[in-house]
Amino acid sequence: MNRKELTDKYNAVRQQTEAICRPLETEDYVIQSIDDVSPPKWHLGHTTWFFEQVILEEFLSGYKRYHPEFYFVFNSYYESFGERVLRSRRGTLSRPLVRQVYDYRREIDRRMLELFESVEEPQLGELARLTTLGINHEQQHQELLVTDIKHILADNPLRPVYLESEDSVSTANVPDVGWVPFEGGLHEFGAAAPPFAYDNESPRHQAWVGGFRMADRPVTCGEYLEFIEGGGYKNSLLWLSDGWDTVQSLRWTAPLYWEQADDTWLINTLTGFRAVRPEEPVCHVSFYEAAAYAGWAGKRLPTEFEWELAVRFGAGKRLKGNFLESGRFHPAALDAEPPDNSRLRQVFGDVWEWTNSAYLPYPGYLREQGALGEYNGKFMSNQMVLRGGSCATPQSHIRDTYRNFFQCDKRWQFTGIRMACDV
Amino acid sequence: MNRKELTDKYNAVRQQTEAICRPLETEDYVIQSIDDVSPPKWHLGHTTWFFEQVILEEFLSGYKRYHPEFYFVFNSYYESFGERVLRSRRGTLSRPLVRQVYDYRREIDRRMLELFESVEEPQLGELARLTTLGINHEQQHQELLVTDIKHILADNPLRPVYLESEDSVSTANVPDVGWVPFEGGLHEFGAAAPPFAYDNESPRHQAWVGGFRMADRPVTCGEYLEFIEGGGYKNSLLWLSDGWDTVQSLRWTAPLYWEQADDTWLINTLTGFRAVRPEEPVCHVSFYEAAAYAGWAGKRLPTEFEWELAVRFGAGKRLKGNFLESGRFHPAALDAEPPDNSRLRQVFGDVWEWTNSAYLPYPGYLREQGALGEYNGKFMSNQMVLRGGSCATPQSHIRDTYRNFFQCDKRWQFTGIRMACDV
Amino acid sequence: MNRKELTDKYNAVRQQTEAICRPLETEDYVIQSIDDVSPPKWHLGHTTWFFEQVILEEFLSGYKRYHPEFYFVFNSYYESFGERVLRSRRGTLSRPLVRQVYDYRREIDRRMLELFESVEEPQLGELARLTTLGINHEQQHQELLVTDIKHILADNPLRPVYLESEDSVSTANVPDVGWVPFEGGLHEFGAAAPPFAYDNESPRHQAWVGGFRMADRPVTCGEYLEFIEGGGYKNSLLWLSDGWDTVQSLRWTAPLYWEQADDTWLINTLTGFRAVRPEEPVCHVSFYEAAAYAGWAGKRLPTEFEWELAVRFGAGKRLKGNFLESGRFHPAALDAEPPDNSRLRQVFGDVWEWTNSAYLPYPGYLREQGALGEYNGKFMSNQMVLRGGSCATPQSHIRDTYRNFFQCDKRWQFTGIRMACDV
Amino acid sequence: MNRKELTDKYNAVRQQTEAICRPLETEDYVIQSIDDVSPPKWHLGHTTWFFEQVILEEFLSGYKRYHPEFYFVFNSYYESFGERVLRSRRGTLSRPLVRQVYDYRREIDRRMLELFESVEEPQLGELARLTTLGINHEQQHQELLVTDIKHILADNPLRPVYLESEDSVSTANVPDVGWVPFEGGLHEFGAAAPPFAYDNESPRHQAWVGGFRMADRPVTCGEYLEFIEGGGYKNSLLWLSDGWDTVQSLRWTAPLYWEQADDTWLINTLTGFRAVRPEEPVCHVSFYEAAAYAGWAGKRLPTEFEWELAVRFGAGKRLKGNFLESGRFHPAALDAEPPDNSRLRQVFGDVWEWTNSAYLPYPGYLREQGALGEYNGKFMSNQMVLRGGSCATPQSHIRDTYRNFFQCDKRWQFTGIRMACDV
Repeated sequence: MNRKELTDKYNAVRQQTEAICRPLETEDYVIQSIDDVSPPKWHLGHTTWFFEQVILEEFLSGYKRYHPEFYFVFNSYYESFGERVLRSRRGTLSRPLVRQVYDYRREIDRRMLELFESVEEPQLGELARLTTLGINHEQQHQELLVTDIKHILADNPLRPVYLESEDSVSTANVPDVGWVPFEGGLHEFGAAAPPFAYDNESPRHQAWVGGFRMADRPVTCGEYLEFIEGGGYKNSLLWLSDGWDTVQSLRWTAPLYWEQADDTWLINTLTGFRAVRPEEPVCHVSFYEAAAYAGWAGKRLPTEFEWELAVRFGAGKRLKGNFLESGRFHPAALDAEPPDNSRLRQVFGDVWEWTNSAYLPYPGYLREQGALGEYNGKFMSNQMVLRGGSCATPQSHIRDTYRNFFQCDKRWQFTGIRMACDV
Repeated sequence: MNRKELTDKYNAVRQQTEAICRPLETEDYVIQSIDDVSPPKWHLGHTTWFFEQVILEEFLSGYKRYHPEFYFVFNSYYESFGERVLRSRRGTLSRPLVRQVYDYRREIDRRMLELFESVEEPQLGELARLTTLGINHEQQHQELLVTDIKHILADNPLRPVYLESEDSVSTANVPDVGWVPFEGGLHEFGAAAPPFAYDNESPRHQAWVGGFRMADRPVTCGEYLEFIEGGGYKNSLLWLSDGWDTVQSLRWTAPLYWEQADDTWLINTLTGFRAVRPEEPVCHVSFYEAAAYAGWAGKRLPTEFEWELAVRFGAGKRLKGNFLESGRFHPAALDAEPPDNSRLRQVFGDVWEWTNSAYLPYPGYLREQGALGEYNGKFMSNQMVLRGGSCATPQSHIRDTYRNFFQCDKRWQFTGIRMACDV
Repeated sequence: MNRKELTDKYNAVRQQTEAICRPLETEDYVIQSIDDVSPPKWHLGHTTWFFEQVILEEFLSGYKRYHPEFYFVFNSYYESFGERVLRSRRGTLSRPLVRQVYDYRREIDRRMLELFESVEEPQLGELARLTTLGINHEQQHQELLVTDIKHILADNPLRPVYLESEDSVSTANVPDVGWVPFEGGLHEFGAAAPPFAYDNESPRHQAWVGGFRMADRPVTCGEYLEFIEGGGYKNSLLWLSDGWDTVQSLRWTAPLYWEQADDTWLINTLTGFRAVRPEEPVCHVSFYEAAAYAGWAGKRLPTEFEWELAVRFGAGKRLKGNFLESGRFHPAALDAEPPDNSRLRQVFGDVWEWTNSAYLPYPGYLREQGALGEYNGKFMSNQMVLRGGSCATPQSHIRDTYRNFFQCDKRWQFTGIRMACDV
Repeated sequence: MNRKELTDKYNAVRQQTEAICRPLETEDYVIQSIDDVSPPKWHLGHTTWFFEQVILEEFLSGYKRYHPEFYFVFNSYYESFGERVLRSRRGTLSRPLVRQVYDYRREIDRRMLELFESVEEPQLGELARLTTLGINHEQQHQELLVTDIKHILADNPLRPVYLESEDSVSTANVPDVGWVPFEGGLHEFGAAAPPFAYDNESPRHQAWVGGFRMADRPVTCGEYLEFIEGGGYKNSLLWLSDGWDTVQSLRWTAPLYWEQADDTWLINTLTGFRAVRPEEPVCHVSFYEAAAYAGWAGKRLPTEFEWELAVRFGAGKRLKGNFLESGRFHPAALDAEPPDNSRLRQVFGDVWEWTNSAYLPYPGYLREQGALGEYNGKFMSNQMVLRGGSCATPQSHIRDTYRNFFQCDKRWQFTGIRMACDV
């Protein structure tokens, strides 16, 4: 990547982040509605801190920090970088002010752009490598910004709307799910060297996958409603033991953001509070709900290897989809295109798809040295892998081998269900 | 009270509240740093809701609420008025926005002023009675605004200052504490009918108080430091059992807002972070600390009856003092006036004084009927009485018979210590 | 007290304790069903440790402890005596075995009896004083043994019965409650010097009590049922704020040990599980329930001074009653004796009566020096006073001035309700 | 299996269980020292209930339950079989008494033996199948009995010893760890049909495993001490994120049962409290500790497939080992046998070996129908697989394909560490 490309990419991602925040009021930037959610201004500051801490501090000798306390306020989980504000207390900080955080962004951007110009040629490669990581990091936080803003607003009794939108309702019926068959065999999985991929996608390695079939589309709200109305949330035998405990202690009766009013189910979206649309992919379900639904339907969730294989061979024009850039901020019903039995649809975008694979290192996995070794590797316990991105994922951020991961009970991301079954 | 007086008093208190908030940034209005603290904008809205719910709703037939959800958002603890936002979740609400809350104030003020003019003469008495309650209610929240703002800012790693102030340091030494003797006897306590007092100060009733002596001033930071340095926080035998549990579980080693840096003790105030001044009254201590200190000093806390008696007979120019109106926002060292052995000083203002009396009904106490019966009476368990007001109390709000009350472990109010002893 | 009397009293109380445990199986001795409850074998050991720690250790120079770890295992809350097993973990100790605890009792008894004989005359007074304290301490634990055994057995799905008993049902109707009037005035309260009383009953002191009326008997189960059926547990306005929180978080719908089966209310007693008897005094209610009931009935709870005064002037043959010695282990319906409007009944025994007085020191109260200062004084916060003893109190343990105390939410003691009202 | 074999196997396992309990006192049977631990008498009853509920109830029409409440008391986690005592409250039950539980065992044994004789030939196969499951179930509880008894006794301040033992100390030095190489390839894993295996070991299926090397013995206490003394518990970068949180919140500084006294490390074992022996395999470490140790040593944990493969090809006389039957109840130092570079030692018995594989279904896994489907499948989230059995595992219970599983933070089982590395 040359200096120009680097600068352009950097600028693009930084502007995208701020565009997401444009509809917010100052007060919205400060709120942490649950521990999982961070205040938007924290995301704005943290992504900036990442460039300052990981790049400016490294490349500029005698670097003078923008503000001594920002390293404390905006560190997320890097033990290597010292103490930090307790995650659950990010919403107790009125300062730095929103405008001060934007000032911080301005100044770090200025320093970064200057560095892109001034860096010596031999260091350009490493600078590009780390900047690419920073850009990808900021893209991850773009998705979190969308999901956190959604939670902050949906949690509010005044039901504020993020964006008014002419959200056209699909009238087409969603076709019955089709089952695309895949032969088993010994295949390679994970990311080969370039272009950019996270360390957790490496090394590319062989694994054996038996024959299987994959649903050609995600489960819809209409299908999920049958599970609810069939007593799915009341039948312990459908659930993993931990899942059943969660259902009971949190009193789940439907996906997050669903509310029952009289005879209809309503749903809170970033573009308003309205009726559940049966044709849309169900989202905001936990792994427990995804697994329970699949079992109830007589199917199962795919492994991450099945998913990757199916996408490689059955996904067609792969990176078309409903991403962050669509501005829709909600999964879309399957478009009118005629179904094609040999082809998976909506594999990228719309909803992250829970797999039945635990988030563990690939054979031969090596953590990056130093602080960046904390980026991914230390989370490899008690989480499940999700694949495919969502309507809040930037399009350029997703790929076949991308491994997202969350704990089994998390629901505030755009997480949905694609089922698999044995041949 | 005539219409003019009513209007003037109403306007004065409403403006005072907003004056307290003037130094705040928008972000500061939204924060709830701990459960005890409410976001400033919530106080602004809640005091306004009180007038709307208790007065406008009552006096104007067919009254149309300003906003249907505000009754849910701004109710504090009145079960009679229906559901409300969980106290601990007040800090998760970005909406209504700060400017919307100010709009709300404007409009309710307009309606109240209109009502003062238009109310029929026969109803004026009741309107004045309820408005007076609303004004006193708002004054209570003025004090809470000050203490909550203090906590919100002090909790922030950037150490924002509420008000820069030329906080003159007293150079005079504080004289040794003097012990003013009072004879016992049968006396009357509590509020006689007019002017305004809360129901919990009634009825005026007899009680027997034995002879006692009362300290002529509150305990100072310097004196309290001796307790700390003498191992006060490490000696279980000085503490009530519940107090010792609290010291250990919350790891208390000094009053709230004190921090030890090398060899000095620093203190966080609304006007900045600076050294502890030995001559100032100690504040932000819990009942447990007050009782432990007094025991360590070989003394005890007064009962609320001793306090009231001592003030009646020994307080001289009683309502002079360091109140909210002084704009100091911190207890002041005793002024230069020569001590006078027969006279208590600093009884009003500066710091609330913990008594060793539980907050319980006076003999013959009757709760107000209806929702206002929830104002005071339902808190008559597990709390201790405090007397005298603080540097955050509006001067016109305090009186001899005023009974403030908090749980034994609370420290975020300006609470201090005046000791008593037997003859 | 001479040596003989001391020996006899000591032996009597020690045997009484073991008699209470006689119906237990080995397994019953080990259980801690909730944090408030201690395993019976712990009570057996703790009361013995008290004599060893407070007396033998003091009087015998070079005293050799029975077992080094017993000081750790059997200390209850005396910080002065060093570390101890966490209260909530008493039920995790299988050792010392029950028979080892009885061996411990045997040996300490032997040493105590020897000391009674061998102590020098000048020390006899102090020995008698401390032994009397130890005896009273053991009597308190006798009551706790009864209530803890009740909880341990009642909590068991097999519903074991402590004692089969020919529990004769009263057929007489309970007369309507009568209201005995008392004139107010300045009176003395608390214990005068001899005979034995706890430090918290001292000093005897004056207090003014206004005129009042006192119910001539405790509230019955039948009366309390009306409160339940009238929606008492569903109406927040009847409750103290802390009480209402407790009702909701613990889902209380009736007193402890009550269960609803079809249309009847059943009750778990030490002599079996059977129907609620409307004529018996209600018991196992918290302070919150007592206060809510009284308010619902248009009355209130008495203060501890009203109670003491009423008993002094209106209780007739005072120490007759249904105590531990009756072997009934449950409050009894009012006996057939004709009511007498000038006289309170059932003031001693049957049920402890919640007062509306907080447990605080009397004017001039002095804690005992040293470790015994921890006996009572350190609990003087967040508790309410109860008076009169219960069906689990040893008869010789109770007196007019006795102050029992528990937190407002405790229900596992035999606690009931006697109401008062203004004239 | 014929009737005779069935009877013999049944009798053998039932006697083995009771033999484990023989050294206990009655009081020991009742204790639940932490939530993970069940009282020994509960294990005795629960294993018996399993036969009654799963077999007698099925095979005998009109079967009359031994005791109606035992189905409630002794159900562990089978939702299909109705309500049950909350797991954390098993230690609050004094009844049924220990002798009543033994009576229950006697009677169910009598009924089972009678059934073995009387069952019709066509049903014998199914009876043998379910009895085998019940026998294996009881063997699992034998291991839990040992570990739970260990915890109950070790938690006691009197330090009771389960069994006095002439625990000969090995004098031999443990040889340096050797690394046995294994070639990768496509292999079959899991249990083929007969003999008995759990459903979670099926189906036998292919998987690809790359080349790797496996340590020829488990990590010793001496090696683990170097980790401790090298600051292992203080360096966040060695730990998984969840692991580091656990270390900090539970204040771990060493394996469970280790205590530091002056300069030595002591260890609590079932045969007494004594110095840590450097040559013994370290045990009572969590997955987090195992993973942190391996990372610190520059190695990693094996996957469960690597482990199974290594054992298949490199374990020699496989089922020799230090099992429950040895009566040692503690892992043993490597015996004097000369090391053999091509061979793994101590793969079975001594300590369970944490793998880096999550406990998930094998491809094509089918839960058993009905209640027995709750046996294994519902636990397939948030747990890691352990292999090889321990010194508390019955020898006949373990096999190559056996998958044990626990949450990452559990330490009260005999869990240890065998490392692997890449070629």
